[in-house]
Amino acid sequence: MRILALESSAKMASVALCQDGSLAAQYCENSGLTHSKTLLIMARELLENLELTMDSVDAVAVAKGPGSFTGIRIGVAAAKGLAWGGSKPLIPVSTLEAMAWHLSDREGAVVCPAMDARRGEIYNAVFQIKNGQPLRLCPDRAVPLSLVMEEAKSGAGPYYFVGDGAKLCYNAFLEAGLEARLPPEPLLLQSAWGVAMAAQRAEPCSPDDVVPEYLRLSQAERERLAREGNP
Amino acid sequence: MRILALESSAKMASVALCQDGSLAAQYCENSGLTHSKTLLIMARELLENLELTMDSVDAVAVAKGPGSFTGIRIGVAAAKGLAWGGSKPLIPVSTLEAMAWHLSDREGAVVCPAMDARRGEIYNAVFQIKNGQPLRLCPDRAVPLSLVMEEAKSGAGPYYFVGDGAKLCYNAFLEAGLEARLPPEPLLLQSAWGVAMAAQRAEPCSPDDVVPEYLRLSQAERERLAREGNP
Repeated sequence: MRILALESSAKMASVALCQDGSLAAQYCENSGLTHSKTLLIMARELLENLELTMDSVDAVAVAKGPGSFTGIRIGVAAAKGLAWGGSKPLIPVSTLEAMAWHLSDREGAVVCPAMDARRGEIYNAVFQIKNGQPLRLCPDRAVPLSLVMEEAKSGAGPYYFVGDGAKLCYNAFLEAGLEARLPPEPLLLQSAWGVAMAAQRAEPCSPDDVVPEYLRLSQAERERLAREGNP
Repeated sequence: MRILALESSAKMASVALCQDGSLAAQYCENSGLTHSKTLLIMARELLENLELTMDSVDAVAVAKGPGSFTGIRIGVAAAKGLAWGGSKPLIPVSTLEAMAWHLSDREGAVVCPAMDARRGEIYNAVFQIKNGQPLRLCPDRAVPLSLVMEEAKSGAGPYYFVGDGAKLCYNAFLEAGLEARLPPEPLLLQSAWGVAMAAQRAEPCSPDDVVPEYLRLSQAERERLAREGNP
């Protein structure tokens, strides 16, 4: 099965094509240019250079969140367009679960994907690698880093961090005397390869049914609720 | 410093742009299409998508070998063309040393990049990760796998394998009761990111002075020597 995977939940934009779980090509760009400008061009060029078209793709996979609201919207919208246009199933996966695959060679390791969620919080979840796959230990959540540190104190270390909040967490852990590790740079941030790996064990959907998962309200929604007296 | 790095020493074609040691973009393709068709197109598209031109690149880096004779020739020729055309320095690095960077987060680990050299041999070298960098323990060489296994028996394990011969070595080690590890797929094969990392501590050259390093004679040269009575 050929999966075209898209990742645009943070600054990194990434596109990958995996065939039967094996990476045929990946394109990652961490330039800060807007994903609405780069993501679909990267996907088109990647397919062209492989001498493939959307006809030969069996499914589209996308990181549905959490992450940057704008980034996720662009990724999900682009993936819906590609899936609808080609009558393909769409496979939405958790941004955090996709990143946990980056450490899947470290059997037994506790993996903590972490994204800067601002407002003093991180988007994160905790996984443990079992039989070469991430086993989820808690749901995706937006929580203060201090809570993750409290959990780590009573758990088995070290924590392996990945994501655009990984260095922040790593430094805080070391300062607190807790064991922490970071992967090498090509696996530190989000990747479409991780999305494709997570998609292999996720449920394909109709593109109609896929919605971004922000984990919390947007600023506009929070402000409206506050105005209406429902903080 | 902005380094544009090229890797085409085996089936994987890869192009990366690193700025001051940090990965701005990477494009990897493992399609089996000839590098003469893909490599420069990938480089051009990568720069275009970053809204950069060769003018803003400070140096070109390339994997000079060992590896596929044809692949190395294409990579070195393309890199020379880019460097000459833009009057940039060219930084040639060992294919094997570039790959050793893939495990640079594993402090103390013994890293053994391995490429299938056919004729019962592997191209390989052995490194140990010290202070987040690969420290070379032996020169690049073409040797039988059995020799690497003999060395491993008297050394500190496990061996971390990387490269297109990594799985072959990994399986042979496990069968012989020796400890071995493999990185996750995006770091299993050659990458231009590794080339850029190795280039940071290598000597820039004039493009005139860079030649491929094959480590052994080509088939045509061997056959000529045999005909001439110098096997």
